[in-house]
Amino acid sequence: MYTKDAQKELQSRARAFADEELAPKMQERDEKQHFPIDVLRKGAALGYGGLYTREDLGGSGLGRLDTSVVFEALSMGDVSTTAYITLHNMCSWIIDEYGTEEQRKRYLPSVTSMEKLASYCLTEPGAGSDAAALTTSAVKRGSHYVLNGTKAFISGGGSSDVYLIMARTGGPGPKGVSCFIVEKGFKGLSFGKKETKLGWNSQPTRAVIMEDCEVPVENLLGAEGQGFSIAMKGLNGSRINIGSCSLGAAQASIEAVIERVKARKQFGQPLSDFQNTQMKIADMAISLLSSRLMIRHAATMLDQKHPHGSSYCAMAKVHATDGCFKICDDSLQMHGGYGYLKDYKANVYFRDTRVHRILGGANEVMRLIASGALLSD
Amino acid sequence: MYTKDAQKELQSRARAFADEELAPKMQERDEKQHFPIDVLRKGAALGYGGLYTREDLGGSGLGRLDTSVVFEALSMGDVSTTAYITLHNMCSWIIDEYGTEEQRKRYLPSVTSMEKLASYCLTEPGAGSDAAALTTSAVKRGSHYVLNGTKAFISGGGSSDVYLIMARTGGPGPKGVSCFIVEKGFKGLSFGKKETKLGWNSQPTRAVIMEDCEVPVENLLGAEGQGFSIAMKGLNGSRINIGSCSLGAAQASIEAVIERVKARKQFGQPLSDFQNTQMKIADMAISLLSSRLMIRHAATMLDQKHPHGSSYCAMAKVHATDGCFKICDDSLQMHGGYGYLKDYKANVYFRDTRVHRILGGANEVMRLIASGALLSD
Amino acid sequence: MYTKDAQKELQSRARAFADEELAPKMQERDEKQHFPIDVLRKGAALGYGGLYTREDLGGSGLGRLDTSVVFEALSMGDVSTTAYITLHNMCSWIIDEYGTEEQRKRYLPSVTSMEKLASYCLTEPGAGSDAAALTTSAVKRGSHYVLNGTKAFISGGGSSDVYLIMARTGGPGPKGVSCFIVEKGFKGLSFGKKETKLGWNSQPTRAVIMEDCEVPVENLLGAEGQGFSIAMKGLNGSRINIGSCSLGAAQASIEAVIERVKARKQFGQPLSDFQNTQMKIADMAISLLSSRLMIRHAATMLDQKHPHGSSYCAMAKVHATDGCFKICDDSLQMHGGYGYLKDYKANVYFRDTRVHRILGGANEVMRLIASGALLSD
Amino acid sequence: MYTKDAQKELQSRARAFADEELAPKMQERDEKQHFPIDVLRKGAALGYGGLYTREDLGGSGLGRLDTSVVFEALSMGDVSTTAYITLHNMCSWIIDEYGTEEQRKRYLPSVTSMEKLASYCLTEPGAGSDAAALTTSAVKRGSHYVLNGTKAFISGGGSSDVYLIMARTGGPGPKGVSCFIVEKGFKGLSFGKKETKLGWNSQPTRAVIMEDCEVPVENLLGAEGQGFSIAMKGLNGSRINIGSCSLGAAQASIEAVIERVKARKQFGQPLSDFQNTQMKIADMAISLLSSRLMIRHAATMLDQKHPHGSSYCAMAKVHATDGCFKICDDSLQMHGGYGYLKDYKANVYFRDTRVHRILGGANEVMRLIASGALLSD
Repeated sequence: MYTKDAQKELQSRARAFADEELAPKMQERDEKQHFPIDVLRKGAALGYGGLYTREDLGGSGLGRLDTSVVFEALSMGDVSTTAYITLHNMCSWIIDEYGTEEQRKRYLPSVTSMEKLASYCLTEPGAGSDAAALTTSAVKRGSHYVLNGTKAFISGGGSSDVYLIMARTGGPGPKGVSCFIVEKGFKGLSFGKKETKLGWNSQPTRAVIMEDCEVPVENLLGAEGQGFSIAMKGLNGSRINIGSCSLGAAQASIEAVIERVKARKQFGQPLSDFQNTQMKIADMAISLLSSRLMIRHAATMLDQKHPHGSSYCAMAKVHATDGCFKICDDSLQMHGGYGYLKDYKANVYFRDTRVHRILGGANEVMRLIASGALLSD
Repeated sequence: MYTKDAQKELQSRARAFADEELAPKMQERDEKQHFPIDVLRKGAALGYGGLYTREDLGGSGLGRLDTSVVFEALSMGDVSTTAYITLHNMCSWIIDEYGTEEQRKRYLPSVTSMEKLASYCLTEPGAGSDAAALTTSAVKRGSHYVLNGTKAFISGGGSSDVYLIMARTGGPGPKGVSCFIVEKGFKGLSFGKKETKLGWNSQPTRAVIMEDCEVPVENLLGAEGQGFSIAMKGLNGSRINIGSCSLGAAQASIEAVIERVKARKQFGQPLSDFQNTQMKIADMAISLLSSRLMIRHAATMLDQKHPHGSSYCAMAKVHATDGCFKICDDSLQMHGGYGYLKDYKANVYFRDTRVHRILGGANEVMRLIASGALLSD
Repeated sequence: MYTKDAQKELQSRARAFADEELAPKMQERDEKQHFPIDVLRKGAALGYGGLYTREDLGGSGLGRLDTSVVFEALSMGDVSTTAYITLHNMCSWIIDEYGTEEQRKRYLPSVTSMEKLASYCLTEPGAGSDAAALTTSAVKRGSHYVLNGTKAFISGGGSSDVYLIMARTGGPGPKGVSCFIVEKGFKGLSFGKKETKLGWNSQPTRAVIMEDCEVPVENLLGAEGQGFSIAMKGLNGSRINIGSCSLGAAQASIEAVIERVKARKQFGQPLSDFQNTQMKIADMAISLLSSRLMIRHAATMLDQKHPHGSSYCAMAKVHATDGCFKICDDSLQMHGGYGYLKDYKANVYFRDTRVHRILGGANEVMRLIASGALLSD
Repeated sequence: MYTKDAQKELQSRARAFADEELAPKMQERDEKQHFPIDVLRKGAALGYGGLYTREDLGGSGLGRLDTSVVFEALSMGDVSTTAYITLHNMCSWIIDEYGTEEQRKRYLPSVTSMEKLASYCLTEPGAGSDAAALTTSAVKRGSHYVLNGTKAFISGGGSSDVYLIMARTGGPGPKGVSCFIVEKGFKGLSFGKKETKLGWNSQPTRAVIMEDCEVPVENLLGAEGQGFSIAMKGLNGSRINIGSCSLGAAQASIEAVIERVKARKQFGQPLSDFQNTQMKIADMAISLLSSRLMIRHAATMLDQKHPHGSSYCAMAKVHATDGCFKICDDSLQMHGGYGYLKDYKANVYFRDTRVHRILGGANEVMRLIASGALLSD
């Protein structure tokens, strides 16, 4: 973990990248559904392709707390693009953590540089929160596993080069799941139509379809049966990261509101003179600070390998993604009619952060994880 | 006011229209931003162009309570299109209530039949909630008033044929405002670009721009100085109507959730067996019922010309539009990842109802109206 | 059901009784835990001992809607005392509805006049919400049933003369329960210590203990096995009644706040000039109105014997008792330090209404009832 | 500031004191309104009389973060008694920070040992949140100041030995206020009747009345005109401390609920198996953790003399006292009817923490402080 000063340096560098490379075309990317691969690679050049991936093959070797600071800063410039980067980072880390040396060397240099983009493939059409019930099958036939099934809501689907796919090699339940590295171009791999979404428009979302898809045995990541555990470990970090993106959106939303209420007048006074405005801004700021502290705390717990780390990540994810969405919603409201226009930043933050309450484990599931830890003791 | 049985008949006819004419292409209109003028006219043939306009010139002569029932039913098929119909109805009513016989005869037949579409023009770019501060000017020069100024966020702007425009003929404050009937084609009238919105996509929204726009003196509606009062009376009904559209969206959202949770299984059980699902659905249903009762009550108070009618409309608007948006948000959440896709109905309801908390008087202003009545007694 | 005018007359008479007989010593009764039997009988002389009990034996023969109006008005003067009256009314009604003519004649005259006070005994120490699991047993031995068991949290326990006790005569589950009229003085009936409660202090609460308690067979109310159904029917009305008491407390709390904010100054202005005060009062008033409409609606549904009457009662109970408690809590807060003093009315309303969210079926159970109706269709 | 290990040691010692000395008679003190001076002195022997007072005269010399940990632990055993200790600590600190050496030596040894108890006197009957408007006057006459006025809601009033009283020596507004050390027994000092409160019953609350009260000039604390500033600095710490007491109550409330839901069964299952129970417990735990982090963060900012320290204290106070009260309210609800009984711990926590939202600056004022900092930048 970095020192406080080093963290501030990381933060200000990320803020600068957000201001220069992300913010200027945020609305344009949203409107045109443009996936900015060039910008992603510029970010990777600064180390954003593998922030918490070890340094020997291009990773930045940061801790989770450091990473959270960076993602919050980046998302102020563009939540949707940053969110994709976080998912790519999860894949980067999974390969780093669970891959063999051979696998690491084969994939990490191009993944950390974002020459190759990566996608995480767990969710299936029929089973959102009940991930362990997945039905995608992987049958070993000689030198290959043959995969059949469909993964839904895959960020980067169709555009990414590398897919980490959880498939069932054994019996029912979590112990029967394995993780595979599947490359675009492998026989039998195809993609669904591009989904039309409320937000997260700068990243494509598609189903990933396997029809007798052939995956070389050396592309099994970890051991057979370890896949669900790998997927869950990846999600712990992802929950902090997605929460961090919510923080950035909320921070930017509050800044936008403050700027607006100081500039605009109604009934002969600046909006900032109205007590209701002041109360609202206080509520937003208090909520944001509490969310930031929850995310930073959970990240620290992961860094310290705390035994209840997963539970802290789940708690932080609920608190930050619900709380920050409410801030974005309040900000939209305080923009009046302008907030309803899609090209206002407040509107984009509102749309982009809405999905954070659903993905990476819906917030209802997060709460069950949290109480499970408390009630089992 | 209709009898209970007659209201049920009105309701079931509106539900049928919603099912047959509105619902089937709701998502298509949303996606393509298509303003369905043909459908509007079909509705007008059933009386929807002037529901609470007197019957002699094409109105349906219903009360506000009856009207609320109809709009709730219609909005189940398409909130955005129904919302436009409600705004058109407000214009229809204003002409009916404040127009001279000559004005009524000139405009009402084509407005109630929706041969001509009407738009209400109060809000200006600089003053959302502080409507009485409007700066559009109207100066009388011989046989014409000359109007200058800009109206923002006009539903139907550019597509409508008739615009009811509030402009200042006198000194500052509400008493200096007059109301004009301005026709598309009048010299000096033009329109801004079509706004890109979160929802309400089946109706165009544009600024209405007056540059030395010439309006014949006979197009003054009501007396000079009466305009703000007319605008506010119109909004009372509009608040009930827009609230009714929120009811329809919430009702449809709950029905969609119930259908979904009975059909889908997770962890080996239908979602409807989970206690959290049950609790959520109860909360949604309780909230909806309380909103419906508030709207119906306010409508009844308007029908009875209750002295605190405006206050009841304001209270109902806050309660119903905030409460029903929350229902739509919960419904989106309970759809999981699918809820984030724009072509799911739950997503459209969420987007369409978001603006109801802002327009027709932002909910913050509604609360000040409500407490003003309580504190002044 | 009464006409609107007759209801207003009922209401103003109840308000007068509240002002003259209940309000003056509300705090004193609260502090001294004084059960005002004399006041109860004065109320009974006006018909409050059996508001929805038939008229031939002393009842007032009102509908549930009328009754709700009366209880709201009474509770403005004293929630705790009114709440006891509502429970007595439930017993009155149960005897009226399910008693034989002989039972009606034996008990109703003295119950409706409150010469004899009545208590409803369902809850047991081990089973709050799971009422159907009750373990109090009733075994028929010749001319008597012999009852054994304990009922918890009995309002009026020890002071009442007549106890309607649900006990198990048959197998497990709701069908095995019967209802008995048990008189104070019957052999084997005793009472626990008086409970010390947060509020509801003007009515005693004790456990009711049966040790080989002998109840004549003619004191079985309804048929064997009908007891749980009787108990539930009684609770439907009770939920509206207890909700009505919450309405009265909330109404009085808002009136107290309005009086206070107009009278007190801070920072050189009356508190009523602060926008936050105005917003709060609006929220309180909106919440109260929506609760009142929910309660009145459910009462009307009971009056009309609507098939989903139970569900509407449950929904209204949740909404009104949760919402009105929040109003009382806000009122306490707006009283500043004074709100924390037990002898301020705002404090008494806060304490008295807190239990409404728990008894008569906890609000969590109410929500399961509501969703059960929706999901079973 | 202590190291993490030293903090854990502090915490476990405080927990032990809470378990042994505070918890056993918590309900008895509540019921009998007993002020446990002997227990306070036992605590003082462990350093609790001046936790963040310098060590030379009996203080413990801890930082604010350490102090917060201690107060949270103590309040698990008794919120009301711990809250009094926090107020005494504020006085201890004020004398330490602003007193002359002579004043420090005269008062601190007996104050830190709690041989003498201290009370903070700012609020007046007419001005809760508008503290700077205070009207108690102090006129210098030779060797004495003569004080006239009344202070309201004084914790320890009548029982304490030393009173820090803010009185006006100069013109209107905060700059005209000075701080005096007034001893019980000084001529002209008397006390009002003991207030009857919802909670905080183990500490007496009385008005402090000055009628030509003579205070030696050497008892002026700090300079003339510095009093309001001293009072506000004291409150910064107090807000963290009172928030810490809310944390302890919430922690204990959650522990009580968890114990209960594991032990009790309904509908044939332990309550802990119900999803609604699980969801509630998760919400409570998430809220508590976020409150704890806010309080610890604000304490750290005070320790670091952060320029926005006051604002962070205000934000933490709102978040923790509102959030933890809700946890206590949920816990009461989850106790069913038992939660309504005054002698259940859940009920005491609910009552004790209610006042934390009001005193030390009402939460509405805290929010204005928070937004003031944000809007003034």
